[in-house]
Amino acid sequence: MNMSIWFLVGAILVFFMQCGFAMVETGFTRAKNAGNIIMKNLMDFCIGTVMFFLLGYGLMMGPHGALGLVGRPEWGMFLDFESFDWSSFVFQLVFCATAATIVSGAMAERTKFSAYCLYSAIISLLIYPIEAGWVWGGGWLSRLSFIDFAGSCVIHMVGGLSALVGAAILGPRIGKYTKNADGSITSNAIPGHSVTLGALGVFILWFAWYGFNGAAAADVEEMARIFGTTTIAPAVATVTCMLFTWRKNGKPDVSMCLNASLAGLVAITAGCASVDALGATIIGIVSGILVDLAVEVLDMRFHVDDPVGAVAVHCVNGIWGTIAVGLFACNESYGTKGLFYGGGLRQLGVQCLGVLTIGSYTVLCMILVFKVIRGTIGLRAGAEEEIEGLDVTEHGLANAYADFIPIESTLGVHSEGPVDTAGLQPFPLTLSSGLRETPVGRKRYTLVRILCDEARFGTLRDTMAGIGVTGMTVTNVLGCGTQKGKTGQYRGIEMSMHLTPKLQVDIVVSKVDPELVVAAANAALHTGEIGDGKIFVYDVEDVVRIRTGESGYDALQISEL
Amino acid sequence: MNMSIWFLVGAILVFFMQCGFAMVETGFTRAKNAGNIIMKNLMDFCIGTVMFFLLGYGLMMGPHGALGLVGRPEWGMFLDFESFDWSSFVFQLVFCATAATIVSGAMAERTKFSAYCLYSAIISLLIYPIEAGWVWGGGWLSRLSFIDFAGSCVIHMVGGLSALVGAAILGPRIGKYTKNADGSITSNAIPGHSVTLGALGVFILWFAWYGFNGAAAADVEEMARIFGTTTIAPAVATVTCMLFTWRKNGKPDVSMCLNASLAGLVAITAGCASVDALGATIIGIVSGILVDLAVEVLDMRFHVDDPVGAVAVHCVNGIWGTIAVGLFACNESYGTKGLFYGGGLRQLGVQCLGVLTIGSYTVLCMILVFKVIRGTIGLRAGAEEEIEGLDVTEHGLANAYADFIPIESTLGVHSEGPVDTAGLQPFPLTLSSGLRETPVGRKRYTLVRILCDEARFGTLRDTMAGIGVTGMTVTNVLGCGTQKGKTGQYRGIEMSMHLTPKLQVDIVVSKVDPELVVAAANAALHTGEIGDGKIFVYDVEDVVRIRTGESGYDALQISEL
Amino acid sequence: MNMSIWFLVGAILVFFMQCGFAMVETGFTRAKNAGNIIMKNLMDFCIGTVMFFLLGYGLMMGPHGALGLVGRPEWGMFLDFESFDWSSFVFQLVFCATAATIVSGAMAERTKFSAYCLYSAIISLLIYPIEAGWVWGGGWLSRLSFIDFAGSCVIHMVGGLSALVGAAILGPRIGKYTKNADGSITSNAIPGHSVTLGALGVFILWFAWYGFNGAAAADVEEMARIFGTTTIAPAVATVTCMLFTWRKNGKPDVSMCLNASLAGLVAITAGCASVDALGATIIGIVSGILVDLAVEVLDMRFHVDDPVGAVAVHCVNGIWGTIAVGLFACNESYGTKGLFYGGGLRQLGVQCLGVLTIGSYTVLCMILVFKVIRGTIGLRAGAEEEIEGLDVTEHGLANAYADFIPIESTLGVHSEGPVDTAGLQPFPLTLSSGLRETPVGRKRYTLVRILCDEARFGTLRDTMAGIGVTGMTVTNVLGCGTQKGKTGQYRGIEMSMHLTPKLQVDIVVSKVDPELVVAAANAALHTGEIGDGKIFVYDVEDVVRIRTGESGYDALQISEL
Repeated sequence: MNMSIWFLVGAILVFFMQCGFAMVETGFTRAKNAGNIIMKNLMDFCIGTVMFFLLGYGLMMGPHGALGLVGRPEWGMFLDFESFDWSSFVFQLVFCATAATIVSGAMAERTKFSAYCLYSAIISLLIYPIEAGWVWGGGWLSRLSFIDFAGSCVIHMVGGLSALVGAAILGPRIGKYTKNADGSITSNAIPGHSVTLGALGVFILWFAWYGFNGAAAADVEEMARIFGTTTIAPAVATVTCMLFTWRKNGKPDVSMCLNASLAGLVAITAGCASVDALGATIIGIVSGILVDLAVEVLDMRFHVDDPVGAVAVHCVNGIWGTIAVGLFACNESYGTKGLFYGGGLRQLGVQCLGVLTIGSYTVLCMILVFKVIRGTIGLRAGAEEEIEGLDVTEHGLANAYADFIPIESTLGVHSEGPVDTAGLQPFPLTLSSGLRETPVGRKRYTLVRILCDEARFGTLRDTMAGIGVTGMTVTNVLGCGTQKGKTGQYRGIEMSMHLTPKLQVDIVVSKVDPELVVAAANAALHTGEIGDGKIFVYDVEDVVRIRTGESGYDALQISEL
Repeated sequence: MNMSIWFLVGAILVFFMQCGFAMVETGFTRAKNAGNIIMKNLMDFCIGTVMFFLLGYGLMMGPHGALGLVGRPEWGMFLDFESFDWSSFVFQLVFCATAATIVSGAMAERTKFSAYCLYSAIISLLIYPIEAGWVWGGGWLSRLSFIDFAGSCVIHMVGGLSALVGAAILGPRIGKYTKNADGSITSNAIPGHSVTLGALGVFILWFAWYGFNGAAAADVEEMARIFGTTTIAPAVATVTCMLFTWRKNGKPDVSMCLNASLAGLVAITAGCASVDALGATIIGIVSGILVDLAVEVLDMRFHVDDPVGAVAVHCVNGIWGTIAVGLFACNESYGTKGLFYGGGLRQLGVQCLGVLTIGSYTVLCMILVFKVIRGTIGLRAGAEEEIEGLDVTEHGLANAYADFIPIESTLGVHSEGPVDTAGLQPFPLTLSSGLRETPVGRKRYTLVRILCDEARFGTLRDTMAGIGVTGMTVTNVLGCGTQKGKTGQYRGIEMSMHLTPKLQVDIVVSKVDPELVVAAANAALHTGEIGDGKIFVYDVEDVVRIRTGESGYDALQISEL
Repeated sequence: MNMSIWFLVGAILVFFMQCGFAMVETGFTRAKNAGNIIMKNLMDFCIGTVMFFLLGYGLMMGPHGALGLVGRPEWGMFLDFESFDWSSFVFQLVFCATAATIVSGAMAERTKFSAYCLYSAIISLLIYPIEAGWVWGGGWLSRLSFIDFAGSCVIHMVGGLSALVGAAILGPRIGKYTKNADGSITSNAIPGHSVTLGALGVFILWFAWYGFNGAAAADVEEMARIFGTTTIAPAVATVTCMLFTWRKNGKPDVSMCLNASLAGLVAITAGCASVDALGATIIGIVSGILVDLAVEVLDMRFHVDDPVGAVAVHCVNGIWGTIAVGLFACNESYGTKGLFYGGGLRQLGVQCLGVLTIGSYTVLCMILVFKVIRGTIGLRAGAEEEIEGLDVTEHGLANAYADFIPIESTLGVHSEGPVDTAGLQPFPLTLSSGLRETPVGRKRYTLVRILCDEARFGTLRDTMAGIGVTGMTVTNVLGCGTQKGKTGQYRGIEMSMHLTPKLQVDIVVSKVDPELVVAAANAALHTGEIGDGKIFVYDVEDVVRIRTGESGYDALQISEL
């Protein structure tokens, strides 16, 4: 009776993880997609609830028959409201929603909203309920005494694998990878727009994880032990990751340590009730290193673009945590022992079997789901929409931070050149050689001021570099014109948006002919559409480079350093 | 005994709703009022606690006598500390604070702080306790078996109606509505400054709502059923709203869907313990549509300016939720059935009676309260204070986001023309015709750079449009002068604010005489006060419009598109 | 049994306070240190867990022997996992972490990250466990029936005193205090970068405080009484502080009221289970005034720089709350009464004894710890690192808000002159007199545009003031150059950061010779390092001062006002 109240309190803590995921994913992506990420996180819970309610719960928790493959739905919530087990329903629902929401982070900033809604309906309706039923609904894995107490495998590995499949099929964000002249690929950092939001999310997730891991405790002693292991593993993982990144990169990495806390939590989730303090410590140490390596390998080696590290945190550590039960299980009450506690290979084998079967099932289903979506309604937002941001293109939300003008920190990274399907871009663009002549002996200094769209800046910058311009000053300004600009909506009201964010690029030249600069800028920016911008030319009296004291012509050349 | 612990845990979840409301209201309003909104949310809880403590609790929960109109205070918390029912006190207090805090959002960005403090004292001292006593304190409505389990009517409708009365008496924010030449009124969107903060608030509210609805559950089975309905209704409402706005506006609206989650929660609050899964689903569907329509009607039709949608969420859905109990109630243990469950019209009648009596009482009281406040200490901040922002004018807080320069996204919307009492503004301002002459045949291009206050930009822009200027570039800069600027305080320390945020408006003209631009800018900006700004004139060598390739004079004229 | 579940739920609420502290401390400091503050808050929990686990818990809760000075560790969590009291461990751990985390706020924005890690290891390993064992582990103070129910003294005073010692030894942030010509010292406000984050943190802390104070309640009646006092004291404190700052400064101060809520919570922590409603009210009133006065005295009188008010909130109110138990205790079940409840001076004496002994112990230990750290690995970040921000220098995090360009609101305050060890700076810098000549009778107006680092702006501004420049316009821009700029890391990936934030300072002069401006700017900005910036000179055609209508030369002089 006591524990049944806690069971429900734990369930609402698991609901609160939706808030944590929303904050983590929003914080670690760009401001121009903030509303879209929020919306995806909100909708995967809401759509998931409807789907789990209609069918998913029955497939998961219904009687599993002899084979134990899938439950038979009974729809008690409709047919027998009073005696239906609502505790179980609410509890299973919030766990299902957690699996679904993991994916949104890895596929962030480039997935079509409608495609995401469809994916989240399918995972909650069919995919999660079936594999979760194997373990928690009386299915075949539970009969083999597979141990996954709170879901390292059932939830985190499944969510993380789906994230991996989704991110791989989707391809990287534009600008994430640059194909160099020698064929090698450079990975560019695309920093999230708010480390504080990300950290808020992590703290909320850790707090809620005590509900996630502890809700199903049999008694208060077990609940306390679970709280112990659920504290030790993430704390140790975070300290380990701090030391590891400090040594590896020279500085302790903030966002990676935040990921490490989550990695430790994911890894202890399967075994939280069956490992001891030493086991929890080792699980934590391993996960703190694993998360960093997995992020690196996935990004640098496989060029899979996972903006928030969902694969490293949930998939890799979900697998590790599930297998670790086979190594460190020691709880007498579960009647099983791991390899290092004298239990032999049996439990380890069952754990690996679970990882392999659930993993294969998930990968196959998700490949099918994402390919079918890609082939029908389309999976990825258009390149222009992606560059402009999904907030305005998918939701008509001009700016999630209306009183602040966001400017992308990665402004210099991506140019708008031809994007191949994998999102890789040739760099730099070359200008037709006819324009490359530079005049001799000019004594004048000229300021060319270019007003253009943020989205075209990469092209402009590369073009300028191509004609010998060595420096420019960029200011974010608001263009205010009488022409009709792009319009947005806010709560159903049209916004006239007379003021449109623009970049003002100031280039002062002497050696390079200002007319060449104007011609090149024209070439780089001309599309023939409204909003192409303007160019102004001003006379400059003098220029001084402060470091060297050079003035005039010399101050504008690249110095030898 | 068990449930009594949960009762208290539920109460602190309800306290946490203060955090949710603060985040929602701050996120959906402008950055220049962020500190003020936070302060109002903090103070309505704190002032409310003192008031409820001194008298309100007694009026609500004291013996209600034969008529059941008002309780007789007994002050047990002072006189008999040990045996006083502190559980009940804490529980009723946090609910009272919820009713009070709903109002701050609808009256945001223009209410005097002192007036808000006074309002919040009165509602917690007298108004809420009396009507809540009718339902929950043993008053006359409870004797008629009026059902409002957790307060769709007692709290949300009352808070929402108070919000409606307050917002209507207060009038709209400056710039919210524009009176057009033909007498019609245009509603302008004033986007909130942080959709992520707003979303954070919604997630916190939803989490805490399990405490709000579930705290008073009789046993764990009822608690589980309440959690079930409290999940289904908002999830369904959010999905419905997404589909509805998608169809209606062409795109799924983020902030409206966030409102829909709250609308579903409000609507299920009265019946959370007495409707079944189907009832919860229908309640959710209706509330997801109602919230969007109510926002639109209130704004477009009645021109009541409710920045956060408090009226649509709390008032409209509070009424719907209360009446819905009369339609869908089916819980045997309450001994009552709604119309659609074979219970006839009795319960529906009682529900409507409750809505009407509590609603009338609230409206009458609040009209009285706000009119008395308006007639004495004043209800609305001055127009200049409103334009500058309540943070600095009411609290000496120069900028709630000190390291970022906010610039209003609605900069182009409001001009500083004469504001009539309803906040409606004539648009555009006309300039005296003597200045309208433009010279002929000029070949020179001139940059006129104007430094001015953000608050005067609307006037400047309209004036410039009036003399034929067709484009300008706006940059937010910091003016640094030796003159004494406006001062602020931060934690009691005077801030010298040598650096004052200014707008820099660049206008390049050829056809329009630069001297006319200077004269018109002078006319638009001159007040004779420190801070009027400066105008600089520069020579421009050339101008190019990128889209058309036009240069010089032509590039500065409006093109035929 | 019942209460033991609540005990654990309370413990996780206390864990959630880590989130609250992180948000408060981040919100009330500058954007350039946001990642660093987050990291310190994350790591003090994680490092503290490891330390408390290894030794601290044993020192605190082990058998205390005859003298009751220190516990004897038994390491049951390793040796006897199943029967170890994990409830107690988790509970004591989260309290320990709270004490440790208080310090980070007071020492924010200038402490070396490695030094902070070391400090946090030591306090959790040795210092906190010993004094906490005196009160809660069966030590000597508990035997004298010292009352500190939830830790006003054991946690908040200890954390606050450590914060005081740390902040004093560390010295103030650069720019916080200015030494004037007459030897007096001016305290400059350095506003936090997000009042909304700070408020979020306060709401989270208040919510979690019900767990902090209530977790150890013996039964549900006591739990309810504790919730009552824990609501009354902070509410009253906040209202008092609002009225007090309103009267004192003319306006109600937002961030001070947020501090007052925390002050009331700290003050009621010791006596939450033993004072009545009247006692809680008086404790609240006093703490609401105390917090404001303590902030002022510490800052203005003692020039100790505590960015978030940790000393005023935790140390001063922790002492007040502990002593207040000796005045207002009235709970029969504790068998003791305070002075004002007829209990004489005994309990008051014991409370004072506890404050003095624990306080002395803490101060001595912390002086030793911080001096040893200062003498070995160093306690304070270098001046350049501090000015640039700890995010990029300590963690390679270029900008915690990557899509927004932060600009310090205190830009005008600090110049880069010689900083003495206390962080006090001479103001203003004087320029060598040879440069001070100004030409006569110039008719031309010239724009000198200077591009420089934000960190050098103070020097530039003071230099310009020294040569008679009376106004300038500052814009934050991005410098984009082919030279190799500073690099950062994001999750292990090098960032090329071609776009470097710069300030663009526009100065228009007529009376002052433009060549003098160029020479003076050169003198102020030249370091010989990459990134010194550039100077451009433009011709201006005319200038108008809008307020007075003056144009040309006159518009550029300081007017008589």
